[in-house]
Amino acid sequence: MQYLSGTVETAITELSKLPGIGRKTAQRLVFYMMKIPRREVDDLAAALVALKDKVRTCSQCFNLTDSDPCLICANAGRERSLLCVVEEANDVLALEKTGEFRGLYHVLGGVLSPLDGIGPDDLRIRDLMLRLQGGVSEVILATNPNTEGEATAIYLSNLIKPLGIKITRIARGLPVGGDLEFTDEVTLSRALSGRVAW
Amino acid sequence: MQYLSGTVETAITELSKLPGIGRKTAQRLVFYMMKIPRREVDDLAAALVALKDKVRTCSQCFNLTDSDPCLICANAGRERSLLCVVEEANDVLALEKTGEFRGLYHVLGGVLSPLDGIGPDDLRIRDLMLRLQGGVSEVILATNPNTEGEATAIYLSNLIKPLGIKITRIARGLPVGGDLEFTDEVTLSRALSGRVAW
Repeated sequence: MQYLSGTVETAITELSKLPGIGRKTAQRLVFYMMKIPRREVDDLAAALVALKDKVRTCSQCFNLTDSDPCLICANAGRERSLLCVVEEANDVLALEKTGEFRGLYHVLGGVLSPLDGIGPDDLRIRDLMLRLQGGVSEVILATNPNTEGEATAIYLSNLIKPLGIKITRIARGLPVGGDLEFTDEVTLSRALSGRVAW
Repeated sequence: MQYLSGTVETAITELSKLPGIGRKTAQRLVFYMMKIPRREVDDLAAALVALKDKVRTCSQCFNLTDSDPCLICANAGRERSLLCVVEEANDVLALEKTGEFRGLYHVLGGVLSPLDGIGPDDLRIRDLMLRLQGGVSEVILATNPNTEGEATAIYLSNLIKPLGIKITRIARGLPVGGDLEFTDEVTLSRALSGRVAW
């Protein structure tokens, strides 16, 4: 059963292709768009097309940016000897939000995942190794604390070790505001083994 | 804190305006779009703009359609004496899916809702009354079985009664596949009072 309007049907089909949006949600979105002013739909459509037109990856850190190099790489105030390696561009945003990090980033563009056929050549590891030749004194491995993220961090650390650069990994432990009782065993044992002097 | 790319930020803001899509979801959608081929994003954007360009409401039943009158109103095989009144265009789709109804529809475009400032003049009630002057023998009130839908059905029935047209309301009772034990009291008492001879 299709909508009477082929145009409505097409819009629903296109929206359903997006991750996390099923047919029902797409239907709701389309009916919403039928009710809002034309200009708002145009603005949305233009913003999506602009993503492909204007956004590129920074040639240095591979973060998403409108200008190359990106604002972080171009900022003379950032510590160039400190490099934080993350999986994706949104991880950069998360870290920038803390306001704690004053170094540069390197976006890998994913994690090692043999099951999905993603090997070292599919990530920006070669570019990372090139950057490390230019006066970097510490590499912070900030891949996610899950299986693939850990494996990627271990792989990178083995690769970087021979260069004599200090390698650190973001701390894993109890999240702030968390509860000992409801924390899983792996996190808890990490929190114990990673305890710090106080 | 904003993304380094103003273009990414704009796309996230535009997507967040949609109902049910928060900033996190919008972020995920934008990163997804950065990874798919350009053509797919263009198709999506074009489909959304086409909604405003091509879709109109049928001048007879106010259903969404690409052509006026809509395919249902234009279909000579439908019973013109039977009119089913629904709230929104997606209700037409739901009813058409059953394949049971052979009459015509009338889309009100909402329900009476004094709290939201929606009165009779904001719905297509005047148009409904005009249509009823042309040989309609039965009006099925198929507004939703909630407070506003019931109130709207009662309001319409009072309006239509003087015309001497048969008025029916879609049956309310236990949903097929439902469970007596877990059904709320109001539905259960409706199912009892609406029991049919067997």
